[in-house]
Amino acid sequence: VQQQHLAELQQTLAELHPADIAYILEALPLDDRLTVWQLVRVENDGEILLEVSDAVRETLIADMDEHEMIAAAKDLDADELADLAPELPRDVVQGLMESLDDQQREQVRSALSYKDDQVGAIMDFEMVTIREDVTLEVVLRYLRRLKELPDQTDKLFVVDVAGLLKGVLPIKRLLVNDPDCMVHEVMATDPVTFSPDEDGSYAAQAFERYDLVSAPVVEKSGRLLGRLTVDEMVDLIREESESEALNRAGLREEEDIFASVWKSLQNRWAWLAINLITAFVASRVIGLFEHSIEKLVALAALMPIVAGIGGNSGNQTITMIVRAMALDQLSTGNSSRLLRKELGVAFINGVIWGGVIGLVAWLLYDSWSLGLVMTAAMTLNLLLAALMGVLIPMTMVRLGRDPALGSSVLITAMTDSGGFFIFLGLATIFLL
Amino acid sequence: VQQQHLAELQQTLAELHPADIAYILEALPLDDRLTVWQLVRVENDGEILLEVSDAVRETLIADMDEHEMIAAAKDLDADELADLAPELPRDVVQGLMESLDDQQREQVRSALSYKDDQVGAIMDFEMVTIREDVTLEVVLRYLRRLKELPDQTDKLFVVDVAGLLKGVLPIKRLLVNDPDCMVHEVMATDPVTFSPDEDGSYAAQAFERYDLVSAPVVEKSGRLLGRLTVDEMVDLIREESESEALNRAGLREEEDIFASVWKSLQNRWAWLAINLITAFVASRVIGLFEHSIEKLVALAALMPIVAGIGGNSGNQTITMIVRAMALDQLSTGNSSRLLRKELGVAFINGVIWGGVIGLVAWLLYDSWSLGLVMTAAMTLNLLLAALMGVLIPMTMVRLGRDPALGSSVLITAMTDSGGFFIFLGLATIFLL
Repeated sequence: VQQQHLAELQQTLAELHPADIAYILEALPLDDRLTVWQLVRVENDGEILLEVSDAVRETLIADMDEHEMIAAAKDLDADELADLAPELPRDVVQGLMESLDDQQREQVRSALSYKDDQVGAIMDFEMVTIREDVTLEVVLRYLRRLKELPDQTDKLFVVDVAGLLKGVLPIKRLLVNDPDCMVHEVMATDPVTFSPDEDGSYAAQAFERYDLVSAPVVEKSGRLLGRLTVDEMVDLIREESESEALNRAGLREEEDIFASVWKSLQNRWAWLAINLITAFVASRVIGLFEHSIEKLVALAALMPIVAGIGGNSGNQTITMIVRAMALDQLSTGNSSRLLRKELGVAFINGVIWGGVIGLVAWLLYDSWSLGLVMTAAMTLNLLLAALMGVLIPMTMVRLGRDPALGSSVLITAMTDSGGFFIFLGLATIFLL
Repeated sequence: VQQQHLAELQQTLAELHPADIAYILEALPLDDRLTVWQLVRVENDGEILLEVSDAVRETLIADMDEHEMIAAAKDLDADELADLAPELPRDVVQGLMESLDDQQREQVRSALSYKDDQVGAIMDFEMVTIREDVTLEVVLRYLRRLKELPDQTDKLFVVDVAGLLKGVLPIKRLLVNDPDCMVHEVMATDPVTFSPDEDGSYAAQAFERYDLVSAPVVEKSGRLLGRLTVDEMVDLIREESESEALNRAGLREEEDIFASVWKSLQNRWAWLAINLITAFVASRVIGLFEHSIEKLVALAALMPIVAGIGGNSGNQTITMIVRAMALDQLSTGNSSRLLRKELGVAFINGVIWGGVIGLVAWLLYDSWSLGLVMTAAMTLNLLLAALMGVLIPMTMVRLGRDPALGSSVLITAMTDSGGFFIFLGLATIFLL
């Protein structure tokens, strides 16, 4: 019976889109996942490996022998092979490279020579190129002979004999213009182009802004190298937003939801360790004031409020700034204006919410001076949070680093230690 | 001289893509923004208003009189008009509606009847429809007569006399097949379609998974209503990831970076107030143990460590779970397995990192029992964090709410109050 069920399952899988199979594999615990993986038809293996997340891909490749890997990879395009190559054993990659023709091998090498997030690593090589001195009728006949066009083909690339890009012929124009027109009469001569060493996220922003479906990638000399397509850009935008969310929470990378406990620990330790250090520093700041707390124990109960609100407010500021930086809306010209605005917001928040909590502290502990210290400490810590919320991402960028990375941990560390220091310091001076 | 500069600026603006002008407007402080806005040619105003963020759009519309608004909106498509309508004065919308023909007015009404994030509000009406019983040659001649095709047209929609969708004809197939073929011979009969009341983010996932450029939207009856295009899906994915990041930081909505202090305060108050309440609760938990802290002041210095690490670890868990939920990888079948994994990770982290910090506490305060309480409290708080990190988003979903909304605030509130209670409670029982 088990055998029969498996046969039925195999039947069903054979009818599914590779992207759907990838999705199913991701949602299955490891043992079930490998059972299903064995049932998938070999010719789909390559496509599926490209679709699944890195963490799941690792588990699937670990389950394959060399023959299966070669069978899975041999029908892939050069750019897809390059995506997969870093995760395959060296022998397998060697074997695959030898089976390619010269042009393809050159393409794989080229793609591997760029970093993951550069245009050169994301582009594909499935372009339809035409000459500018032919009629649209000739182009239409040429396309008919191709039998099939690459996916996402919304424009043809017009090149000269040397391979230099002269323009692009949008399919739209090919369809609505008189077939007797010449290509150079109807082509667009100033298309949006990208260079292979540009940043992929920059390209994604351009795709978004100009509603592109595909765009040519050219060398500095103007020679056509490959093309970018919107499906890759969509994946890139999604991946970026996910890795941002994961980084913010202190996860190094995407984690297979059914990963072993051991794998999960490795993924989560780096930031827990950093957090442990910042928490320890904050703890030592409190340690400086143990005598004050001994004399006035209410300080111990009130101090986390000052630190907590500062952290929340600092995270609001830093999120705004990092976002504005990602959209390139911040220049040195307007940064001082921005800092003044953030300090203004922090000051008003400090006086109002600090006032509220100061009043509560006064009523609770029957001490107006304690309430006043609370209000003052909240205001100062919110000002510190605003200052750091602007300065941290700006310094990160000046140091050439991603302003989002670790921003939340850093600002929280500052507002914790800073909040404890300001509150306990003021209390020690004015209350004891 | 000023006058001459403005003339030059106007010249430059006239040559820019509306999306580029929108980008420039967003990066300018309010007064400069309005100066530039006055220089933009009226026929571009509508496009630009659609491109800028909500916050910036508000500032631009506030600067326009009724005539300018009508001039800006009158050349827009029905779906674009529907996007803009909610932010225009009622009179202006009334006037614009009257200037439309019956079909367009119906389309605007239809688009306005759906919620912002439903397919019906995102779709456009610029479809090219053909019949199935004609040859490709006829289709090609028909397209040539249209003079222009809508952007993002990668397929034509095949409908019958009643407007029912029979299939789609990808442009690729139109180009490579023999012109004497009939449409029904080469069309795809099982395209991915969407219904107008579906969730936009569901559609975006389908576009991503199947690498779509455009797709038909059909009623239950099968009648063709409109189409979705990848450029709208890209915007949707970007907006979702942004609003997620903003929500996480406690910002209600996108904020114009040069917004007034007053506007910023409104945007940020809701969550600061919530945070104030949770911080106050945590403070009262500490208040319960003031006698213990008076006797052993080291507790005051150590307690933020227990709470802080718990918060960090809980945020890691909840980020993983929310992400798995967004990708639909979580079912009730596998949730207990997941909970066991998260508890396992938390336990090991607690023993190891709790052990480290316990050792440090022992050395620092020369009390092995204090170190032991520290380790035990860390472990218990991490277990609490893991449990809540799984339960909070699951409960949110069961209550029909977005699992990401406020997840970070909730988990931090639990690990703060919980951490203080566990640590001070254990210390009171075992150390005093």
